[in-house]
Amino acid sequence: MRTESFAGDELTRDDFLGGALRLWQPRDGYRAGMDPVLLAASIPAKEGDTVLELGCGGGAALACLGARVPGLICTGVEMQPAYAALAQRNLNENGLTGTVHCADLSALPAAVRSERFDHVIANPPYFEDFRAVAARSEERAVSRSGALPLERWVSVASKRLKPGGVATFIQRADRLPELMSAFFGCLGALELWPIHPRSTRPAGLVLLRGRKERRAAFVSHPPLVLHRGESHEKDADSYTEAVSKVLRSPQMLPFPDQSRGQRQRF
Amino acid sequence: MRTESFAGDELTRDDFLGGALRLWQPRDGYRAGMDPVLLAASIPAKEGDTVLELGCGGGAALACLGARVPGLICTGVEMQPAYAALAQRNLNENGLTGTVHCADLSALPAAVRSERFDHVIANPPYFEDFRAVAARSEERAVSRSGALPLERWVSVASKRLKPGGVATFIQRADRLPELMSAFFGCLGALELWPIHPRSTRPAGLVLLRGRKERRAAFVSHPPLVLHRGESHEKDADSYTEAVSKVLRSPQMLPFPDQSRGQRQRF
Repeated sequence: MRTESFAGDELTRDDFLGGALRLWQPRDGYRAGMDPVLLAASIPAKEGDTVLELGCGGGAALACLGARVPGLICTGVEMQPAYAALAQRNLNENGLTGTVHCADLSALPAAVRSERFDHVIANPPYFEDFRAVAARSEERAVSRSGALPLERWVSVASKRLKPGGVATFIQRADRLPELMSAFFGCLGALELWPIHPRSTRPAGLVLLRGRKERRAAFVSHPPLVLHRGESHEKDADSYTEAVSKVLRSPQMLPFPDQSRGQRQRF
Repeated sequence: MRTESFAGDELTRDDFLGGALRLWQPRDGYRAGMDPVLLAASIPAKEGDTVLELGCGGGAALACLGARVPGLICTGVEMQPAYAALAQRNLNENGLTGTVHCADLSALPAAVRSERFDHVIANPPYFEDFRAVAARSEERAVSRSGALPLERWVSVASKRLKPGGVATFIQRADRLPELMSAFFGCLGALELWPIHPRSTRPAGLVLLRGRKERRAAFVSHPPLVLHRGESHEKDADSYTEAVSKVLRSPQMLPFPDQSRGQRQRF
């Protein structure tokens, strides 16, 4: 658990979205990868909407979403004080409107408990394979320990949504059975969007969303493919066009149009 | 519920797998589509293996699997007597080894309850949208009423497997949340293989499998795509090569190689 704030020399300041954002990140702790960028890009938020991120870390997803949607009102909850402070700083220094609370999911502050949001987003931490990747610092281990089961994350998300509001989670694909079971238990109109590193490979990540108090048939969308070609090239520019765009500018990459899913015939 | 056997003029005899099988089917009741063919093609059964199908209908999936795997020992369970008799006849007349029991899932006969199988397969019936497609006969309505929740189907399948045995279900994609929750509750090493009518469309069907008493990370495979191109052509020959092959001959269409799913990097 990281309780103290980061010292200046523990931080780097990095460009996101082609420089539209500049985010402070710990040099050695949890650093944002592609997940928060894709999560933010997938959220259909409109001007003036409210969004809550559970476990917001250093605030990358909230900031990416805020950079795209004018007038968005951001709320973050993060249990590690140093990261909560970092997320608040990242919102402030990028001119975004929002408040980050340092709190555990199971004890949300009254200001959060009294509100219902248009969107709740999350990228819950998960166990890494510690044989392969040793945690390099204590806070990183905490952020990846996945202490709370996904069912708790989804339950809290559901409770904080307005009727018709949307919960969207991004998660490592191997946790989909647990995540989908949790969504199935408390949200409706579920949509799965698997994210595959290449078109011929299994999903590495999944986006799953559901609506509060809404019913509609579940939809399993065609994959979002990150890289062109079948094999790994070191070249980062192998990104597919759609992915490359959202990594380099504050653009939306929405879930595919649902209407195309109606009454599929074989 | 179809309790009486079909009269001769209520049946048609149809070629499957390019004529490798000839199956009797009710003219107006439940007729096998692509589902049982794809289900059977996906099963990695070996010579001498035992397979149980829950809700086998007229026996199309069992017969397709038996036609491919020499020495396979087939067991079917079907609650509608006329369909159970039809399935037995279809196995016999195609020279396949197997027994079909007329029984409800919740009251399996002792011969089935005393055995553990290498494979359990199922294509549980589901509600059709009756506004769009009226059931043309009573037995069809029963076979599609989905009277038992999927959790019951999966629980029975799991109990009838040997340790390490594989349960494979094919199902309409909109029931994936319910199906996956059920698998997550009692089987391990889950693998999802979504089946999309075209590469740009949502999944219409899903194949989901799991192993009894085995643990491994969940894998979400790249889609199986049925038709080439983006839009609907009436031409049945728009099938992709892999699908066309298994519709026209008793071949295997196995789940993609899992080893490609290890430690995906982004």
